[in-house]
Amino acid sequence: MPDVSAPTLFSRLAAEFLGTFWLVFGGCGAAVLAAGFVNPDGTHLGIGFLGVAFAFGLTVLTGAYALGHLSGGHFNPAVTFGVFLAGRIEAKAVLPYVLTQIVAGIVAAAVLFVVASGQSDFAIDPTAPGSFATNGYGELSPGGYSLLAALVLEIVLTAVFLWVILGTTDGRAPVGFAPLAIGLTLTIIHLVAIPVTNTSVNPARSLAVAVFNPAALAQVWLFFLAPAIGAAIAGLSYKMLFAAKE
Amino acid sequence: MPDVSAPTLFSRLAAEFLGTFWLVFGGCGAAVLAAGFVNPDGTHLGIGFLGVAFAFGLTVLTGAYALGHLSGGHFNPAVTFGVFLAGRIEAKAVLPYVLTQIVAGIVAAAVLFVVASGQSDFAIDPTAPGSFATNGYGELSPGGYSLLAALVLEIVLTAVFLWVILGTTDGRAPVGFAPLAIGLTLTIIHLVAIPVTNTSVNPARSLAVAVFNPAALAQVWLFFLAPAIGAAIAGLSYKMLFAAKE
Amino acid sequence: MPDVSAPTLFSRLAAEFLGTFWLVFGGCGAAVLAAGFVNPDGTHLGIGFLGVAFAFGLTVLTGAYALGHLSGGHFNPAVTFGVFLAGRIEAKAVLPYVLTQIVAGIVAAAVLFVVASGQSDFAIDPTAPGSFATNGYGELSPGGYSLLAALVLEIVLTAVFLWVILGTTDGRAPVGFAPLAIGLTLTIIHLVAIPVTNTSVNPARSLAVAVFNPAALAQVWLFFLAPAIGAAIAGLSYKMLFAAKE
Amino acid sequence: MPDVSAPTLFSRLAAEFLGTFWLVFGGCGAAVLAAGFVNPDGTHLGIGFLGVAFAFGLTVLTGAYALGHLSGGHFNPAVTFGVFLAGRIEAKAVLPYVLTQIVAGIVAAAVLFVVASGQSDFAIDPTAPGSFATNGYGELSPGGYSLLAALVLEIVLTAVFLWVILGTTDGRAPVGFAPLAIGLTLTIIHLVAIPVTNTSVNPARSLAVAVFNPAALAQVWLFFLAPAIGAAIAGLSYKMLFAAKE
Repeated sequence: MPDVSAPTLFSRLAAEFLGTFWLVFGGCGAAVLAAGFVNPDGTHLGIGFLGVAFAFGLTVLTGAYALGHLSGGHFNPAVTFGVFLAGRIEAKAVLPYVLTQIVAGIVAAAVLFVVASGQSDFAIDPTAPGSFATNGYGELSPGGYSLLAALVLEIVLTAVFLWVILGTTDGRAPVGFAPLAIGLTLTIIHLVAIPVTNTSVNPARSLAVAVFNPAALAQVWLFFLAPAIGAAIAGLSYKMLFAAKE
Repeated sequence: MPDVSAPTLFSRLAAEFLGTFWLVFGGCGAAVLAAGFVNPDGTHLGIGFLGVAFAFGLTVLTGAYALGHLSGGHFNPAVTFGVFLAGRIEAKAVLPYVLTQIVAGIVAAAVLFVVASGQSDFAIDPTAPGSFATNGYGELSPGGYSLLAALVLEIVLTAVFLWVILGTTDGRAPVGFAPLAIGLTLTIIHLVAIPVTNTSVNPARSLAVAVFNPAALAQVWLFFLAPAIGAAIAGLSYKMLFAAKE
Repeated sequence: MPDVSAPTLFSRLAAEFLGTFWLVFGGCGAAVLAAGFVNPDGTHLGIGFLGVAFAFGLTVLTGAYALGHLSGGHFNPAVTFGVFLAGRIEAKAVLPYVLTQIVAGIVAAAVLFVVASGQSDFAIDPTAPGSFATNGYGELSPGGYSLLAALVLEIVLTAVFLWVILGTTDGRAPVGFAPLAIGLTLTIIHLVAIPVTNTSVNPARSLAVAVFNPAALAQVWLFFLAPAIGAAIAGLSYKMLFAAKE
Repeated sequence: MPDVSAPTLFSRLAAEFLGTFWLVFGGCGAAVLAAGFVNPDGTHLGIGFLGVAFAFGLTVLTGAYALGHLSGGHFNPAVTFGVFLAGRIEAKAVLPYVLTQIVAGIVAAAVLFVVASGQSDFAIDPTAPGSFATNGYGELSPGGYSLLAALVLEIVLTAVFLWVILGTTDGRAPVGFAPLAIGLTLTIIHLVAIPVTNTSVNPARSLAVAVFNPAALAQVWLFFLAPAIGAAIAGLSYKMLFAAKE
């Protein structure tokens, strides 16, 4: 996305706040409220994992088109970290970005909690995988996948996510299409990984809902570590593999 | 979307009429005719909430690409209100826009009623949530969500909708992609909110079908009030948060 | 889509042939082969009406991006008719376009018949609605909708389709996005109309599969008449409503 | 996609490696991990064939936006072959491209195997159609389709794929939209062909997973032969049908 030096830091952080709020509220909201909806007559009307995958991906697509010209449209500490390693954002903005994303995610999860509580039988079940859209592995993986599978998958998918981000915002790529490609990459990532970890690739998204679910909070370290490793691999290798010839 | 001063007011209102007709006919039509379709052999072929979410979002995407250069592509009184508060449309066009949207929505619902009545067992059931694609809360919420949950959700989602509209039509955003991002934002909004309110964020859409369902008509006030509050929050805050430096 | 005067008539007709082949083969192929697929273990994996709606719409999206600069990307006699009434194609090309579209559709249906026959229990059932992706009303409507409902719906949806086509290819609309908006409009049209008529808005698509199903052939007149009326309404009204001021 | 002469061969092959890895890992990963997911409570949440179709198509869409300016974004030996026949890539790059794609696919399948093995009841069943996302015909076709049906369908769909690729990257087509149209064409191809062959049109994708499934390996010849024939038809005919007048 275009040069981010012109907007003030306040505008940039406000954009990151709104975009991360939208990612967590839209993505986790779809998962919590609509994924498994069954009509009283037994008809399955819920959006399933496919709908959740589109919800997450499209929040980034739409948020990046609306706000990317202000902040770069990261909405994710792993993205900010990888973009920093690739030399695309100045060091002193990294911590403010990451803190803003974390706070925005928690605010979004809190508003979602208020809405979800408006249904009388709503409850967070710490023993159930993915309750309140939390991420997990082992007994908290939706499909019962191991810690190793979760770790490998989150590293690989975060690395691909960053390669797509760095590639589509490269000066040689088609202009204007980066948010489309980046958002839809997040959709694919969810199409693959929901059964394994409920899909993170984003520490702010994982922490936000884990705050409301103690079991998930105990596993949240993996969703900081794996995205960070994946982002580092991609951020450091991009220039080596694909740098324009000087 | 581009400058709206050139087309005549008649062209602008004709564009708003067609676009709002398309939003209500396409979105509510998908919900009424196709959401829960089950084959005689028991196979679920219906489009579910996911299909309805795409139908609503894509009517705005397609309508805004086809007509946005004429009218701005609002198709929604809350959008016109928020865009007015952000200083993007002149005061004297607001009332004609809103009245046109309301009439267009009702005409669309009437045509949909004619088509739906072509099935011999069609009937609107005022005690069932979402009958004839109406919006509701409490006992008329598809998932039984409270008035408070409905109010909070409609306010938050309308505010995000307006922020995306104002952000993507900002002069600094990528040119030509606003209808794509705005339409897909409406898709996400439906992915989250159908179980709660059947999703409004649009008073014209809510009133249009409520005219055919007295129970829904008694709750339609919320779908004027909440979108108006959400639009006001976004319309008034956008300049403060994201104004370009002079 | 751009000026169509430069390519030869042969190139233009070849493009219409390929594009219409793709529309019928991709759209009807998805419906016939994949809509209701159920795994031996009982899991529903089929793409449903939602998948069919995307298949039809995306054939037009992709065909128009690939071939629209050659022929205008009609792939549909109703589109050619409406575009002619709006003054966007010369009279002497109309008949060659329409004949090419009709032949291409039948060739696509024949190839699809060969593929579908590769499953040992494949058979066309003339008493079942929508068998071999045919269009119908009354007892041949998937949801049992009346002739009147079918007529009204096909007229209205074809008119909207043409308005979107004429609006997005207007010189004032965003450049390059017309195929995206036109294709996704066809997706919405299918999201609404599959339960009613199995969705036509395209005489070439209806005739192509009806050739293989005598019951559907007896109803195919409606899918010539209604799209023609809808296209005429939109083609004739567009200039009146939305003409640029001279 | 733009001129591919500037990047070094190393960069081009690195891009083909990553893009093919992403296609196989994202597409086959969605199929293996998420297609048929059923919740312990019996709710169907899996993404079905529709989700798999989007996963495959969107990997190409996103990969081509991120890497297409480097390598042309083939990610498929049949594409490289067809593009070569159409005169769009130099002869000496063909073999390195194809070998890179084949290796990348196998690496992706190996990583996917590690992740899938993290679920205790994971096993590849060589007697079941499509096990580990393999392609097949006859008794290994998901819907039990014959060798002839598989051959015809893979030829036709690969030819359409190449026509769309050559058409959208033609200098006269709208700039920047080729990856969108090409990716979504692959989505349609999957919407049609999953029940017949589990969808190949890509020898690297077929071989990659067949390496892990001996039964599929015995049928993999068809998924080299048919895509090659389809690509040859399109690559050789494109210029004849659609060449710009000199």
